[in-house]
Amino acid sequence: MFEYPALFAVAAVVREGSFERAAHVLNITPSAVSQRIRLLEERIGAVLIVRGQPCTPTEEGRKICRHVERVAMLEQELRAVMPSLGGEEALESRITLPIATNADSLATWFLDAAMGAAKRQGFLLDLSVEDQDHTATGLRRGEVLAAVTTLEKPIPGCDSTPLGSLRYRATASPEFLERYFADGVNARTLAQAPGIVFGKKDTLQYQWVRRAVGHDVAFPTHWLPSTHGYVEVSLGGMGWGMNPALLVGSLLEKGALVELIPGLCVDVPLFWQARRLSSALLDELSGAVVKAARASLLWTGAGR
Amino acid sequence: MFEYPALFAVAAVVREGSFERAAHVLNITPSAVSQRIRLLEERIGAVLIVRGQPCTPTEEGRKICRHVERVAMLEQELRAVMPSLGGEEALESRITLPIATNADSLATWFLDAAMGAAKRQGFLLDLSVEDQDHTATGLRRGEVLAAVTTLEKPIPGCDSTPLGSLRYRATASPEFLERYFADGVNARTLAQAPGIVFGKKDTLQYQWVRRAVGHDVAFPTHWLPSTHGYVEVSLGGMGWGMNPALLVGSLLEKGALVELIPGLCVDVPLFWQARRLSSALLDELSGAVVKAARASLLWTGAGR
Repeated sequence: MFEYPALFAVAAVVREGSFERAAHVLNITPSAVSQRIRLLEERIGAVLIVRGQPCTPTEEGRKICRHVERVAMLEQELRAVMPSLGGEEALESRITLPIATNADSLATWFLDAAMGAAKRQGFLLDLSVEDQDHTATGLRRGEVLAAVTTLEKPIPGCDSTPLGSLRYRATASPEFLERYFADGVNARTLAQAPGIVFGKKDTLQYQWVRRAVGHDVAFPTHWLPSTHGYVEVSLGGMGWGMNPALLVGSLLEKGALVELIPGLCVDVPLFWQARRLSSALLDELSGAVVKAARASLLWTGAGR
Repeated sequence: MFEYPALFAVAAVVREGSFERAAHVLNITPSAVSQRIRLLEERIGAVLIVRGQPCTPTEEGRKICRHVERVAMLEQELRAVMPSLGGEEALESRITLPIATNADSLATWFLDAAMGAAKRQGFLLDLSVEDQDHTATGLRRGEVLAAVTTLEKPIPGCDSTPLGSLRYRATASPEFLERYFADGVNARTLAQAPGIVFGKKDTLQYQWVRRAVGHDVAFPTHWLPSTHGYVEVSLGGMGWGMNPALLVGSLLEKGALVELIPGLCVDVPLFWQARRLSSALLDELSGAVVKAARASLLWTGAGR
């Protein structure tokens, strides 16, 4: 059996970001937290936590946090059916599920479902936001228990469920379209018009351009890592960008935004990958997320 | 004189994230980009770019990018008064200003001002979003030219201008308040009620709690790194959180959100720190940002 008081101390410091707040949560003194962790580190022969603001886990520390989160979740479920087991310290009793999602899902269909499940079951959410092609990384590293991702192939130890596709439209303000695309959308006009790109890992614009003109075109780029900010600068005429149809549907109807090439979309298939843990809490969250996705996303279903 | 074709190739790969897109922008072949950079790396005796998806700069590579961005900006300004100098390759002629801001400023007062200046002057923005206490890091490292930050003391080489304070209110849905704080807001009720915290570097909640009850209280925490998502889950009754008054003013008026303790705010003084570069473009951006901040933020002015 592992030395659980020390293991839970490591997880608390990482979750809370400091020894002081971890001590508060565990209801012991900061020096007790520090001593537990130091002794564990000495015994293992590895540093587990990089002391800083905030404190962050080393590779080894991360492995321990992953283990503790899972044990704590299983504890909570056993406690629900055998309350006499006790062992429930004030805050330790509320389980935190670390989940990753892409920003556009968070801003459109995801949050409501996750919030509903968290409120019903009383668990806490530790949401991290990652580029959709990279949410799988946290899952592979074991930093999150489940993720909304573009990766269909199940990560070892995980189940992958298709969610449907998030549809993106290439949109701009009518004035922007008039100024840069009066001669139509082609390689020459695209090369002049500023585009807005979410982040360095984002390839949606490049996919759309290849679909529009058949090859890559380099264009002047504004970088803006914010879903709502992205809509705002599209409206403001700073550039054209790939906006989620779910978010700009009414703006397109009103004519505040227009499509560069009406109907030319990029659909991004999304998947819910979750650790196989036989956990009722995680199952509840998965059920809510899949249901919300199927109600909001594009579902072709064929072949899946 | 430095070997500028190679230096500009390094900057283009970092900005675009790949050798292929950099080649496109520079209008040369990917192998030419690769060769320029490899020869430079051999001569310097250091790797400048970590090849990956996306490509990222090493510490040394970052120093080169910083230099190139500044040279390019100065070039653009000289070109404006001496068009005969030429040297203007398709996309190289549009300058990208790397700027950092905290997410809450981006979601409230910042974007409009930055967008206005970018449109007027024709430069491109590379916006990065950082926790408000950490935007200064990018500036210190030279990765950004200017930042909205909580740090008042000028970073070496930068000017610091006070912008006023962003006011935060501790808010929740009326149902949430009724459920968790029917007995008032005190250490016991705060320890039970889930709070929403933006990120591990965020200390606003802890500041507010100390102000409310005089000492720290550990509380169950949802983590959610999204300004708009944060408002949404506050409305949905998932927890209480520190929302920018600018963003939730009308929701408070309508009664969709209520304050935990009416009038008990946390004000976060913000500063604009910008590199001293004698650059008209950066000056224009700084002017627009300071003007917008003074119109939106709380301004006591006294002593500053």
